[in-house]
Amino acid sequence: MDSPIDSLHCLPQFTRPMAPQTASNSFTLPSSLPLDSGQDLDGVAIAYESYGTLSPARDNAILVCHALTGDQYVASTHPVTGKPGWWERMVGPGLPIDTDRFHVICANVVGSCMGSTGPASLAADGKPHAMRFPVITIRDMVRAQIALLDGLGIDQLHAVIGGSMGGMQALSLAANFPERAARVLAIAATARHSAQNIAFHEVGRQAIMADPAWADGDYYANEARPDAGLSVARMAAHITYLSEAGLTEKFGRRLQDKADGSAGTKSFGFDADFQVESYLRYQGSGFTRRFDANSYLYITRAMDYFDLAEEHGGHLGKAFAGTSARFCVVSFDSDWLYPTAESRHVVHALNAAGAAVSFVELSAPFGHDSFLLEVPALDRVVKGFLE
Amino acid sequence: MDSPIDSLHCLPQFTRPMAPQTASNSFTLPSSLPLDSGQDLDGVAIAYESYGTLSPARDNAILVCHALTGDQYVASTHPVTGKPGWWERMVGPGLPIDTDRFHVICANVVGSCMGSTGPASLAADGKPHAMRFPVITIRDMVRAQIALLDGLGIDQLHAVIGGSMGGMQALSLAANFPERAARVLAIAATARHSAQNIAFHEVGRQAIMADPAWADGDYYANEARPDAGLSVARMAAHITYLSEAGLTEKFGRRLQDKADGSAGTKSFGFDADFQVESYLRYQGSGFTRRFDANSYLYITRAMDYFDLAEEHGGHLGKAFAGTSARFCVVSFDSDWLYPTAESRHVVHALNAAGAAVSFVELSAPFGHDSFLLEVPALDRVVKGFLE
Repeated sequence: MDSPIDSLHCLPQFTRPMAPQTASNSFTLPSSLPLDSGQDLDGVAIAYESYGTLSPARDNAILVCHALTGDQYVASTHPVTGKPGWWERMVGPGLPIDTDRFHVICANVVGSCMGSTGPASLAADGKPHAMRFPVITIRDMVRAQIALLDGLGIDQLHAVIGGSMGGMQALSLAANFPERAARVLAIAATARHSAQNIAFHEVGRQAIMADPAWADGDYYANEARPDAGLSVARMAAHITYLSEAGLTEKFGRRLQDKADGSAGTKSFGFDADFQVESYLRYQGSGFTRRFDANSYLYITRAMDYFDLAEEHGGHLGKAFAGTSARFCVVSFDSDWLYPTAESRHVVHALNAAGAAVSFVELSAPFGHDSFLLEVPALDRVVKGFLE
Repeated sequence: MDSPIDSLHCLPQFTRPMAPQTASNSFTLPSSLPLDSGQDLDGVAIAYESYGTLSPARDNAILVCHALTGDQYVASTHPVTGKPGWWERMVGPGLPIDTDRFHVICANVVGSCMGSTGPASLAADGKPHAMRFPVITIRDMVRAQIALLDGLGIDQLHAVIGGSMGGMQALSLAANFPERAARVLAIAATARHSAQNIAFHEVGRQAIMADPAWADGDYYANEARPDAGLSVARMAAHITYLSEAGLTEKFGRRLQDKADGSAGTKSFGFDADFQVESYLRYQGSGFTRRFDANSYLYITRAMDYFDLAEEHGGHLGKAFAGTSARFCVVSFDSDWLYPTAESRHVVHALNAAGAAVSFVELSAPFGHDSFLLEVPALDRVVKGFLE
């Protein structure tokens, strides 16, 4: 089977001139993408990276789904930041997701800004969609992933894997396309966004929309971008990715060293006196160099809309009624964004559906971000599950 | 003893014209206020409310200290919002803080915006201090409270009481002016701000400072105020005042009813679809009508600087070495802003100092805000402690 795949430069328009340019593969959906909103989105391009060799039987593919601000560069250098891939510790030759054995695919979600069609992409009139872009859902993202798999000629994945919003996609794929994955691994995820989850996202959206440079989303042709608002949104979100204990361990109340290298003292001003303040500011400003504010609005909205039970008559068990996949659900004891109770809720539904599921709560100090960080126990779980 | 007290209209300059005007009492400090920064602040006015009658022996006074965005209107109608006092359920005739028996004083902290000297107040040059206002600390607030007590001729309080930042003031008063209070009641408080506490405050400050209308703090003469930034700051903070379970109980994933009264549906847009979004937006915008953005910067900074142990050679026990007061420390099991562990840390230090202390963790679903809400067990603790 020939796949209608072309390779091109697909970095988003908004990328600043100083950013290095590299190519991802890009796949243009052969037909319009039907959305949960009832709209159809035409001409959707999906940018993706792949690693390892697809077997002749096309049965060794693993789809890795990225989180809110992630992208397809799971194990490749990020073209804008120049940093290593976001899961290089997990994906590669001899690593738990072993590219000597598996063909690993990671696609930028629809609505994002690293090459897949999103608010920054050009609409039919030649101007960016901006806020004309339709509101999407996690299921819409998964529909695009499935269309990509169709294009690649992959009928069934060896596994679909994701952390955080990636885990939501994995669960949604299992529920809506049960025949497409033999194994489903959802890490630090949830089957629905809680009121607190929605509340934090709403703060971020309001921070972006409060920035005059947001200009109702029509900022792509402007010199000024809503960087200040996006930075605040990222700062607020970033706190939720870390644990209180982790922040205390990493920063405590330690003061910034002075420029001359001497120990810090309180400035009795509004500079970043505390290391944690400086760290957060750095996280916020760094994020604006690689992410589009409108994409942040759309993807957070998709996550807030996510309620897998609601999609299936209000019963999460029904969501998994048709599955014959094996599941693995992983939570972290220090994750207060999607705490273990949310994973347990998923596991109970899988049990009710008679699915094969293993569940592990790992102890790790890093909060929600544990799935991205050095947690050797996670490596063992992932490796074991893929056997 | 005559007190140099005058009563006047002391609402801050920034109050919008539509706000009703009422008078608090105001006390002008007879000498400059020495600050932890090393500066001295001249002409400090402290606005306060009082309730009940001071006994001839002047020994029945209770000082109630307010929280970050609180004010002196503990049991009086708020002049801007028209809402009841913030602790009317606790302070009044026959209530746990019984104004038939006690003379209750509540003063607006220095740095705030409800009549006490703060960034919005006029400096010697006739213009608002704005960001020329010196950075203050919790101990500076307490120094001003002590100066007020001096002015009122109250040598020793029957009790000093506060929740959240009010509890920090109560602890600071006990540590720095141990002879001035016979009883110290700290509710939902902490002896130091954690990295996570600082991080959330920094998000709020950055949200304000990112608002172009903030104008480096010099907005008092402008038509535009940094309401958008202040609103985002309030929204982020407000989430930390509530528990995840409380938010789920109150809002869950319920959608807003439509204007015509019909049940809500997802808009597939960026309006406030979820009730929790609408609630947060309301909290944010309402806050801007009663609070000054610069005061928010200064008071959050004071809280972040708070570390009672650091002030006393790094040992919290030493902070309370000189005390003969009785202490009561109260925490709430659902408070993740200042969790029970922080209160326990204070209690251990008081034990080490040989102080008389009772400690109770109350079960309440409302998170940090439990100290303000309907928790009958708290009423009993407060009433019993004041006997």
